[in-house]
Amino acid sequence: MRNIKLLIEYDGTRFSGWQIQSKARKKTIQQEIQKACEKLLGEKVIVIGSGRTDSGVHAKAQAANFRTKSNLSLHNIKRGLNSYLPKEICVLKVEEAGLDFHAQFDAKGKLYKYTIFNRKERSPLNDRYSTFITYDLDISKMKKAAKYLVGKKDFKSFQASDKKERSSVRTIKRLDIIKKGDIIEILIDADGFLYNMVRNIVGTLIDVGRGRIASPHLKHILNSRNRSSAGETVPAKGLCLERVFY
Amino acid sequence: MRNIKLLIEYDGTRFSGWQIQSKARKKTIQQEIQKACEKLLGEKVIVIGSGRTDSGVHAKAQAANFRTKSNLSLHNIKRGLNSYLPKEICVLKVEEAGLDFHAQFDAKGKLYKYTIFNRKERSPLNDRYSTFITYDLDISKMKKAAKYLVGKKDFKSFQASDKKERSSVRTIKRLDIIKKGDIIEILIDADGFLYNMVRNIVGTLIDVGRGRIASPHLKHILNSRNRSSAGETVPAKGLCLERVFY
Repeated sequence: MRNIKLLIEYDGTRFSGWQIQSKARKKTIQQEIQKACEKLLGEKVIVIGSGRTDSGVHAKAQAANFRTKSNLSLHNIKRGLNSYLPKEICVLKVEEAGLDFHAQFDAKGKLYKYTIFNRKERSPLNDRYSTFITYDLDISKMKKAAKYLVGKKDFKSFQASDKKERSSVRTIKRLDIIKKGDIIEILIDADGFLYNMVRNIVGTLIDVGRGRIASPHLKHILNSRNRSSAGETVPAKGLCLERVFY
Repeated sequence: MRNIKLLIEYDGTRFSGWQIQSKARKKTIQQEIQKACEKLLGEKVIVIGSGRTDSGVHAKAQAANFRTKSNLSLHNIKRGLNSYLPKEICVLKVEEAGLDFHAQFDAKGKLYKYTIFNRKERSPLNDRYSTFITYDLDISKMKKAAKYLVGKKDFKSFQASDKKERSSVRTIKRLDIIKKGDIIEILIDADGFLYNMVRNIVGTLIDVGRGRIASPHLKHILNSRNRSSAGETVPAKGLCLERVFY
């Protein structure tokens, strides 16, 4: 038995996210990869991702693993999978992992990037991978607000209200806001993420940037542990899983 | 009578290029803009572009003009047109131009950008706006070759073989090749372009980059005035009209 680790890039636009779902009308990334594995290897496999990405979310480097009895070379596994996968999904790397490696449980952290396109008129050439904000955003205020979120905190206010995890405490190691012309990138590196956490944080930072919320108010939002005190959930298409740390 | 100048951004993926065609099965950009103008202004207008862009080519800032009797404000023309245009097309700027301004005949030059994605595996997240080249490209060789193309030259070898213009002499003012990680951008600024000229130049530079053609051979390709001596035409999706100079 071998344990194979994959690094996968995908454009999530037309998929119902990572996870196989019984009722999804659209296809899922996990389902497409498992199908490709089964065609290539001739055996049933379960592909374990580092975590779910939501419907419409992209990944530059999602990590996953699966066990197989096949003795195909790593090179041929990569070539074979890519020949079966649709053009929105590509396996970038195939590695031999220890038999106990688990892409989800062994993940020590993840880096997500959220992209905002900020100018007066929408941009057809930036529409697919960003969310469009027409009003001026004050980056320095957003950066000040971001500082309140770095560290080990209870992020319950930024968790989708219908989701309940045992603990909503997570550690954000880094939260950078970078402006490149009309593009604003928000990079969040944390040991784990609650459901919709990145998209709810970004929605709140946008409220700060447009002057609806003062930067120090972030402290009160965190303390309230109440989803309704934070900003709106921004669209999935601006979100990309950049890296998984092990 | 007024003469209105437009600056337009578009994603050309699902369009048959700029120009209205009697037989085009897909829609064209010009057709969509004229339709929006006619809906907004209630009169028939002809929208003159700075030049045609081919099927699948994008524009960050195409220029155009049209004459109208309307007395709508510039602001309301912009808002109105954008409300009627599909999401792949956006009017960025609307200006009052002199009555004799002609977007095509007055254009002094254009800047095109061609994007190559260069690594071992294809990239789903870069697929829409670049062409994928899997073999290593030697940028320094490509830069050397590019130097032979700068200046006033006869570009007949880079003109689509079925097209005949009175003269195939054009002046390339600038031809830059910029590498940003896996992305290679080729920027060509010229006083005018022959049909498929950018895409044929890029195809030839790729041949240089992968070692099929030596850089100084560009001189012979130019002198031959023969399309078959140059490289292949690269796909439209990597090409973007960046700017029109007046």
